[in-house]
Amino acid sequence: KRSYNVTLLPGDGIGPEVVAVAKDEKLMGGAAVDAYGVPLPEETLAVAQASDAVLLGAIGGYKWDNNEKHLKPETGLLQIRAGLGVFANLRPAAVLPQLVDASTLKKEVAEGVDIMVVRELTGGIYFGQPRGFGTNDKGEDTGFNTEVYSVSEIDRIARVAFEVARKRRGKLCSVDKANVLEASMLWRKRVTSLASEFPDIELSHMYVDNAAMQLIRNPKQFDTIVTNNIFGDILSDEASMLTGSIGMLPSASVGESGPGLFEPIHGSAPDIAGQDKANPLATILSAAMLLRYGLGEENAAKRVEAAVTETLNNGFRTGDIYSPGTTLVGCKRMGEEVLKTV
Amino acid sequence: KRSYNVTLLPGDGIGPEVVAVAKDEKLMGGAAVDAYGVPLPEETLAVAQASDAVLLGAIGGYKWDNNEKHLKPETGLLQIRAGLGVFANLRPAAVLPQLVDASTLKKEVAEGVDIMVVRELTGGIYFGQPRGFGTNDKGEDTGFNTEVYSVSEIDRIARVAFEVARKRRGKLCSVDKANVLEASMLWRKRVTSLASEFPDIELSHMYVDNAAMQLIRNPKQFDTIVTNNIFGDILSDEASMLTGSIGMLPSASVGESGPGLFEPIHGSAPDIAGQDKANPLATILSAAMLLRYGLGEENAAKRVEAAVTETLNNGFRTGDIYSPGTTLVGCKRMGEEVLKTV
Ligand SMILES: CC(C)[C@H](C(=O)O)[C@@H](O)C(=O)O
Ligand SMILES: CC(C)[C@H](C(=O)O)[C@@H](O)C(=O)O
Repeated sequence: KRSYNVTLLPGDGIGPEVVAVAKDEKLMGGAAVDAYGVPLPEETLAVAQASDAVLLGAIGGYKWDNNEKHLKPETGLLQIRAGLGVFANLRPAAVLPQLVDASTLKKEVAEGVDIMVVRELTGGIYFGQPRGFGTNDKGEDTGFNTEVYSVSEIDRIARVAFEVARKRRGKLCSVDKANVLEASMLWRKRVTSLASEFPDIELSHMYVDNAAMQLIRNPKQFDTIVTNNIFGDILSDEASMLTGSIGMLPSASVGESGPGLFEPIHGSAPDIAGQDKANPLATILSAAMLLRYGLGEENAAKRVEAAVTETLNNGFRTGDIYSPGTTLVGCKRMGEEVLKTV
Repeated sequence: KRSYNVTLLPGDGIGPEVVAVAKDEKLMGGAAVDAYGVPLPEETLAVAQASDAVLLGAIGGYKWDNNEKHLKPETGLLQIRAGLGVFANLRPAAVLPQLVDASTLKKEVAEGVDIMVVRELTGGIYFGQPRGFGTNDKGEDTGFNTEVYSVSEIDRIARVAFEVARKRRGKLCSVDKANVLEASMLWRKRVTSLASEFPDIELSHMYVDNAAMQLIRNPKQFDTIVTNNIFGDILSDEASMLTGSIGMLPSASVGESGPGLFEPIHGSAPDIAGQDKANPLATILSAAMLLRYGLGEENAAKRVEAAVTETLNNGFRTGDIYSPGTTLVGCKRMGEEVLKTV
C-alpha cells in the first residue's frame, strides 16, 4: 500500500461541506482573501505543488463578487491552474440510467449520452497578453483581451484528447471557429496534422456555434470533444446540463507532470451553503478521477465509482436529484452512505 | 402605397431557393467568389448600401471550405455586416405551439419559450485588431485575435437591447465573462450604468457558461438576452436549437441608420441544395422582420407572419418540421401556400 500526499482546498460556499472528508486543508478562494488578503496564498500553492494531487471543493460567493480582479476568488482559481501547469481539463458529462429523468431533454435524446470534453485550461483568452483597459484612436475607453495559441499549446492538448478518445469510443471532435478566427485556423491545422499519429481515432471538426446546437439536437453523436479554454468553458457547462444533474459531475485538470487538480464542476452555491443540502457526489467522483488520473490507482477509482452507483441504486438522493420514490438525504448522510459501500 | 428598393442576395446552397421570390439579385458568397474572385463584390455592397433593405439567403458550401480567408464566403458576410454598419443582430427563438414536438426538450420545458437574442455584430473578436499569425518569444508559431469593445460600441448595442426588451416582456439579461475578461468587465459596467435610462426594464447579468446551462435547464426564464459577437454566435444558435425548428428562424441586423440586413439563421445546407427540400419559412419570416425593422411596415410584417401561422395551421410542413398527420411539401410549394394566404 503506497501513501500519497493529497492537498485539500475546500474553498467557499458549499465547498467545505462537499470535501468534509478532508485532512490537510489549505485556504484558497474567498476564504483566503478574507484570511490573507489574496485568493491564492503562496503557501497554498507551494503545498499543492509539493503534493501528489489536489482536491478542490468550489470557490466564490456574493461577498467577493464586486472585489477588484486581483482579489476575486476566480483569480485564485486561474492562478492555481497556471501554477500547477494543468493545461488539460477533462469534463465528463454522462447521463446515468438512474437519473435520466433529471434531464430536461426527452428521454430518447438523453439516454445513453456519454461525452468527455477536453478543454485547454492554461492558455487562450483567459491568459493571453496584452489584456486590460485602454483608449482607442477616437479617445474612447476600451476593454480588451487576446485569444492566442501557440503550436506547442495546441499540440499538447490535442495529444491528450486523442489519447482520451482512444480509451473511450475512438471518436474525437475538435471544436473551433476557424471560419473567422486566426487562432482557430492554427488550432485546426495542428489538430489535423497530429491525426496521422492516431490513425485509429476518427477525427472531425465542428464550428463552435454548430457544436452548441448539435449538443442539443443529438448529443449522442459526440464521444470526445477537444476545444480551447473559452469554448470549453461554455460547451462543457452546456454538455453537463444535458445530464440534468450537475451536482454529480467531476472534473480533472492535469499537466505534463506534477500534481493534478480535481474539482466538481458545480460552483460554490452560496445560497445553500452550510445547510447540509449540497450533493457531495461530484466531489467524491472527482476524488475517483484523482485516483485514476492523478495517482494511477485505477482499481481504487473504480471502487469509488462503484460505491456511488450502488448508493444511487440504494435509492439515496440529495435534493438536486430527488424524484418521488427515492430517499431524500443531506450532504453528510449521502457521503456516509457512499463510504459504507466502498 | 410607398415603394421600396430591397436588395436580394440569394447566396449559396439552398439560399437561391429560399429567396426565389427575388427580383434585383446581386451575387455574394461563394457564388461571387466563382464569378468575380471576391466574396463581396464592390458593386454588390454599393447596391446594398443604396437600397432600403437587404434580404440574404445563406452563404458557404463545401466547395469553398478550404479557400484562403479572403476568398471564403464567410468573409463576404463579415464584410457586408461591416459595410452596412449593422451592429445589432436580433435573433428570435420561439417555440411555436404547432411545432413544440420538434424540440428535443421535454414538452413542459419547451412550451412557451420565447427568447430574443440581441447579438453585437460588428465588433469584438470578429473584427478586433491586432489579429493574425505570429511568433512567440520561444520562436513558436502562434495564431491570435483580439477581443475588444469600446464604450460607444457597448452603449449602442445595449440601448437597442433595452428598447427591444421594452417592446417584449421588459426583462433583459446581459451575458458576459466579467469574472475573467477585461472586455466583459467594461461591458458589464456600461450596461449597468445605462440601466438608469430604462427604469422600467428589469436588468440581470449572467456569465456565459451559466447562460449556456440555463438555456437548457429552464429557457423560459429568459426574455431578451444581450451579448457580444462571439458569445451571441454561440448562444443564439443554442437558443434556436431549443425550438427544434431552425428552418423556421429569421434574423434582423440593423444599424444606426441605413439599410438593414435580413437573413434566415440556417446555413446554406449544401447537402440538400437544389432538391426543393429546404424550408423557406425562415426566409419568409426574415422578410417579415425586414418589413418591421427595415421599413417600419408593422402591419405588412404582421400579415406575413399571420400567413406563415395559417400555413402551418393548414398542416403544411417541409421535411425538417414534418410529423405524422401533416402534409409534406417541398420548398416551392410551401412558399406558394404562404403566398396564397397572405
Ligand atoms: C470561475 C471561472 C473562472 C471558471 C472558468 O471560467 O474557468 C469556471 O467557470 C470553470 O469553468 O471552472
Ligand atoms: C458564417 C459565420 C461567419 C457566421 C458568424 O459567425 O457570425 C454565422 O455563424 C452566423 O452566426 O451568422
